[in-house]
Amino acid sequence: MRLSLVASTDPADYGFVHRIRTRFAETDAMGVIHHGAYVPYLEEARAELLRHGGHPYDEVRAAGVDFAVLELFVQYLLPLRFGELVEVNAAVGRITRATFQVAYLLRVGDETRCTAVTVHGAVDAAGRATRLPPWLAGATGTDHR
Amino acid sequence: MRLSLVASTDPADYGFVHRIRTRFAETDAMGVIHHGAYVPYLEEARAELLRHGGHPYDEVRAAGVDFAVLELFVQYLLPLRFGELVEVNAAVGRITRATFQVAYLLRVGDETRCTAVTVHGAVDAAGRATRLPPWLAGATGTDHR
Amino acid sequence: MRLSLVASTDPADYGFVHRIRTRFAETDAMGVIHHGAYVPYLEEARAELLRHGGHPYDEVRAAGVDFAVLELFVQYLLPLRFGELVEVNAAVGRITRATFQVAYLLRVGDETRCTAVTVHGAVDAAGRATRLPPWLAGATGTDHR
Amino acid sequence: MRLSLVASTDPADYGFVHRIRTRFAETDAMGVIHHGAYVPYLEEARAELLRHGGHPYDEVRAAGVDFAVLELFVQYLLPLRFGELVEVNAAVGRITRATFQVAYLLRVGDETRCTAVTVHGAVDAAGRATRLPPWLAGATGTDHR
Repeated sequence: MRLSLVASTDPADYGFVHRIRTRFAETDAMGVIHHGAYVPYLEEARAELLRHGGHPYDEVRAAGVDFAVLELFVQYLLPLRFGELVEVNAAVGRITRATFQVAYLLRVGDETRCTAVTVHGAVDAAGRATRLPPWLAGATGTDHR
Repeated sequence: MRLSLVASTDPADYGFVHRIRTRFAETDAMGVIHHGAYVPYLEEARAELLRHGGHPYDEVRAAGVDFAVLELFVQYLLPLRFGELVEVNAAVGRITRATFQVAYLLRVGDETRCTAVTVHGAVDAAGRATRLPPWLAGATGTDHR
Repeated sequence: MRLSLVASTDPADYGFVHRIRTRFAETDAMGVIHHGAYVPYLEEARAELLRHGGHPYDEVRAAGVDFAVLELFVQYLLPLRFGELVEVNAAVGRITRATFQVAYLLRVGDETRCTAVTVHGAVDAAGRATRLPPWLAGATGTDHR
Repeated sequence: MRLSLVASTDPADYGFVHRIRTRFAETDAMGVIHHGAYVPYLEEARAELLRHGGHPYDEVRAAGVDFAVLELFVQYLLPLRFGELVEVNAAVGRITRATFQVAYLLRVGDETRCTAVTVHGAVDAAGRATRLPPWLAGATGTDHR
């Protein structure tokens, strides 16, 4: 297990927030957002974090690097419901030569609904592990422990 | 609109059937399978139809041809529910030089739940329209009108 | 087939537009947005159209009415790609006592990518057909033919 | 973090296996199965594990109990590709009065592709935590550490 970051429940520990409106297609027969639908929320926030940092993911990919997901950890604290506007806080942390981790905090209003951490590895077009791009390797990752 | 095939509600009009168990992830807050989840059911049945005919879709793609979806029509007659085993009947029809249509009938037991038609065009790796592979162009499409 | 509306490719024929950023999770191995991922786009635009009209879908549902999807027709004209900002134009048309139709036009910049029509029926909490809510039954549907 | 089970990579440590054919709709623009698509695979295997044990999840739900997902951990070791037949091994472990954990091992042929653990809590129809059903509380959970 590479995953070592702990996702803080304090939004002040995150430097970036992205808002996502939940979709009806993402609900399930329990009347709440299905737990699998959170994974694209994390990914969308991650993509917006890259865009915000001047490195849109489609440009990263066009430059020959993909960020494969190596590990995923999600804690579901309170359900999300259809039509809610979710604040997805995100912060990069724990950067190695070839991997980085991202912590997430999902809130609706002042209420914590979910935390998550993903671990990513840079891979080339053939799927082989490669070094992180310099702009990312040089970033100072926030450590939330 | 290229779509011209009419999907029969008589399973005898189809030469192929594929069974799919609905997933809980595919339900929505109305307590039934979400209407968007049917689209992968049609695609899975289409892929199994190709496999059954000796042309698995991954081999078709490896040979440089993709079957882009040009049009999609779905009629939702009765809802599907979680845990049901759906019989997806499928038949190819209306073949032109560059396109073909597929009709679908979804049943649970003897009950018709849904019919659908998709229209496909052969495209090369760059996404340009191309001729259908010979094995498909030569097929005698069943016309369900 | 109840579907009778024809979706115009002129954005001036629509009174409402909703913007959606495509997700990486929605791409497929052809490198474009998967055709099934458009269905939630249509649904999200429809929900925002209702919200815009003062009738958020969660309130509609809380009042005991669901809008079941009876039919779906999508024409895929040009592919959508990851990271694109899609303008989903939507307009209600062809209202009967128990059903209504919605037309959609998906554009990126000035380029038409997709048109679609959905047909909906009002159902009560038990899934039985019921009358449309008065605020919707009284609406003047735009006819795009 | 309630998650404490470690998913073994030895199929002999699991008493149940369920086969899932990957769908084209589940691929992404990296040409492999999207990491979010694994979550429904785990859920489908879990549902089949319950069915195999004589307790189909729709009957469990009809009896007034839902198994909410509290935590999810996935390790992606090698990618899954379109058309592959995945063996999802699953085993229940670490049962408390109100929660249980499930470990998963995903293989194609003899190759380990992924391991995962989910943590579940029994909830009633209103979403409140409740005791596990007796048939589950009495199960002897396999501990894979």
